[in-house]
Amino acid sequence: MVKTTADMNALLKDMGTAAKSAAKALRKSSTDAKNEALLAMAEALEENKSFILEENKKDMDHSREAGYQDAMVERLALNEARIDSMKDGLKQMAALADPIAKTQDQWVNKDGLRISKRSVPLGVIGIIYESRPNVTVDATGLCLKAGNSVILRGGKEAVNSNKALVKVLQEGLSKSSIPADSIQLITDPSRELAAEFMKFNEGLDCLIPRGGANLIQSVLKNATVPVIETGTGNCHLYVHEQADFEMAESILVNGKTQRPSVCNALETLLIDRSIAKEALPALTDALVQKGVIIHGDETVCSITDEAVAAEEEDYEKEYLGNEIAVKVVEDYEDAIGHIEKHSSGHSDAIITGSYEHAQNFLNDVDSAAVYVNASTRFTDGAEFGFGGEIGISTQKLHARGPMGLEALTSYKYVVEGMGQTKG
Amino acid sequence: MVKTTADMNALLKDMGTAAKSAAKALRKSSTDAKNEALLAMAEALEENKSFILEENKKDMDHSREAGYQDAMVERLALNEARIDSMKDGLKQMAALADPIAKTQDQWVNKDGLRISKRSVPLGVIGIIYESRPNVTVDATGLCLKAGNSVILRGGKEAVNSNKALVKVLQEGLSKSSIPADSIQLITDPSRELAAEFMKFNEGLDCLIPRGGANLIQSVLKNATVPVIETGTGNCHLYVHEQADFEMAESILVNGKTQRPSVCNALETLLIDRSIAKEALPALTDALVQKGVIIHGDETVCSITDEAVAAEEEDYEKEYLGNEIAVKVVEDYEDAIGHIEKHSSGHSDAIITGSYEHAQNFLNDVDSAAVYVNASTRFTDGAEFGFGGEIGISTQKLHARGPMGLEALTSYKYVVEGMGQTKG
Repeated sequence: MVKTTADMNALLKDMGTAAKSAAKALRKSSTDAKNEALLAMAEALEENKSFILEENKKDMDHSREAGYQDAMVERLALNEARIDSMKDGLKQMAALADPIAKTQDQWVNKDGLRISKRSVPLGVIGIIYESRPNVTVDATGLCLKAGNSVILRGGKEAVNSNKALVKVLQEGLSKSSIPADSIQLITDPSRELAAEFMKFNEGLDCLIPRGGANLIQSVLKNATVPVIETGTGNCHLYVHEQADFEMAESILVNGKTQRPSVCNALETLLIDRSIAKEALPALTDALVQKGVIIHGDETVCSITDEAVAAEEEDYEKEYLGNEIAVKVVEDYEDAIGHIEKHSSGHSDAIITGSYEHAQNFLNDVDSAAVYVNASTRFTDGAEFGFGGEIGISTQKLHARGPMGLEALTSYKYVVEGMGQTKG
Repeated sequence: MVKTTADMNALLKDMGTAAKSAAKALRKSSTDAKNEALLAMAEALEENKSFILEENKKDMDHSREAGYQDAMVERLALNEARIDSMKDGLKQMAALADPIAKTQDQWVNKDGLRISKRSVPLGVIGIIYESRPNVTVDATGLCLKAGNSVILRGGKEAVNSNKALVKVLQEGLSKSSIPADSIQLITDPSRELAAEFMKFNEGLDCLIPRGGANLIQSVLKNATVPVIETGTGNCHLYVHEQADFEMAESILVNGKTQRPSVCNALETLLIDRSIAKEALPALTDALVQKGVIIHGDETVCSITDEAVAAEEEDYEKEYLGNEIAVKVVEDYEDAIGHIEKHSSGHSDAIITGSYEHAQNFLNDVDSAAVYVNASTRFTDGAEFGFGGEIGISTQKLHARGPMGLEALTSYKYVVEGMGQTKG
């Protein structure tokens, strides 16, 4: 299927026009109308389970034939429970507060103009993602709840699942007052079309990539549409000399092993030299028992024989698996220096009983989420109480950290006068 | 002066390292320290007027020799009054409230974690701008007040003025506790270096272009650093059938002629057919008396002989001069349709005595600033009461409309626990 750039642009333009028109309707929709649409989509998922699973089976079969790894095929897989979970997600979104039509601030300026800062939807949101089909439903639900239409571009290995899910969601919408065009799916899997999509400024108000580091980097490099960068997490746990060792162990094990494949999992352990000999063996033991490989610096390797020698690049790595880099630092300043140099700015934590060091750490570390005496695994929209989450932003513009419904909104200024002109 | 990409990257890397280190100091600086730095910079401007004017004269001479237009040379020109105005700007910034170290929100999650959303600086801000040297001082002052360091890339025609201003500002900083490295200036005028600067993700947290449409488009197309788009204003005034005609005239003349070269000036007038015959002649007369050329549609040309026939592209134009497009619309819906199609989303206004149409207009028009019975010329940081303004955003991500100090900040989440792990 060879397409010219003109073909691709025509395709995008049509989708963009439909999405923009739907966004206009969504922008004016009441909270009730949006919630009814979410519930209608949930109902449609329930009613079309067997169709969705049949289509999903095609993707699974193709992936197995193509020789994809088991983990990849597993990410693609849908079953009744996973469809229920998407359905429940939509129902939960219906119960969340509406982030739109809120006046954030209002004042009267020196000329007597009443100026209001009102929350409004972003408009049309592009989502580029990889193999997990649940993103199709979760992202769509959140975008619609915040009054936005979406143009989805999923992975080519999930194309049948995504087509089925979008068809079903649109069927749900057709029973509500929200236009079915609020959801657009790009089914052409070509990289060329993805590249055009990233430059579709005319049709997109923002673009959110969801997936691995390669996808994110490709979007950052190629997009001209405003992007929200998500998800790279080289997260640190610093065990300060005044730490409670048992607390340190429990938070370390939780951060590294509870779900190693996600961006808020720990990747590096730092520990003060003054307590290393006493505290480190129990910490590394606990990790090794969970099957974690320890990449330690020289001192670490001299204290425990459970570690392999760390290379300098280990401190840069987001392992996303059962490995961790461990380093003995001289003191608090040394720990901060290491975090400043290596952190990806996602989530970093200190374990300490010192009030002073806790406060300093919260100020000194410039990451989206900074922790004292708690696991970095809490950096998550649901844990933060936002209901859903469209991703975790690691940039500073627009939104930072877990992004809930508010991150999917903008604002406008409403200015009411009685004939004022500028002097 | 031919430079390799490696040379340029080395130059940027050095600047980036210095700016990042300064940003770290700025982030921790007290409000008083930042304000003292602003006042020290103001003082330094006062003390070095003759040096600045000498250097500025070089730029003016070069520009005249190069045959630049008078308007361009005029934009470059500094004089005592203009330096005083920059100086006063810095003093006013010192008096503004500090946008940093404010807790925007705080709550306890279901696990008992105390989560705070704290305002923080963006970090290092890149500014790409054209010939006006006052941007060097204004942008730097605002960035520093919000705790950010800056890397400036001004126009090549203003390079001596900018070098002089940065030298003087840095001298001011050296008498304060804020590092002089907080201000970095790219003096190499090449487009190649500008292109590398737009892709300097490693060193910049955000990039703000200030200038004409060509500059903005070039930055939007080429940057990989997160950009805040500023400044394109195709602004509309819609005179509704229930308008007060005198008010309409006064707001029209103000919007079009008070300062036609700026982005919040009016570019299109729409008027309801039912009142066109009665109201239009006085409106166009008032504009013609101010030297404005009227590009009217067929009906307009049939009502007044002061208009020339408008082409379709006139409705797309940002004239930034003494011209205006005028169109007779059938009714409110037709006016909204025209604005939706042609507005750049900057500022649009309705003149009406109808409560219903006023409210509908405020909801229906999706622009950064939407007005009832007031001039679009008020879309401005100072008029909105923000003190200074770094630009007017026409995108929806991060900041929209006039951007004051808050637009130069981000936030981080501070999470305080007592040993919590994720279950």
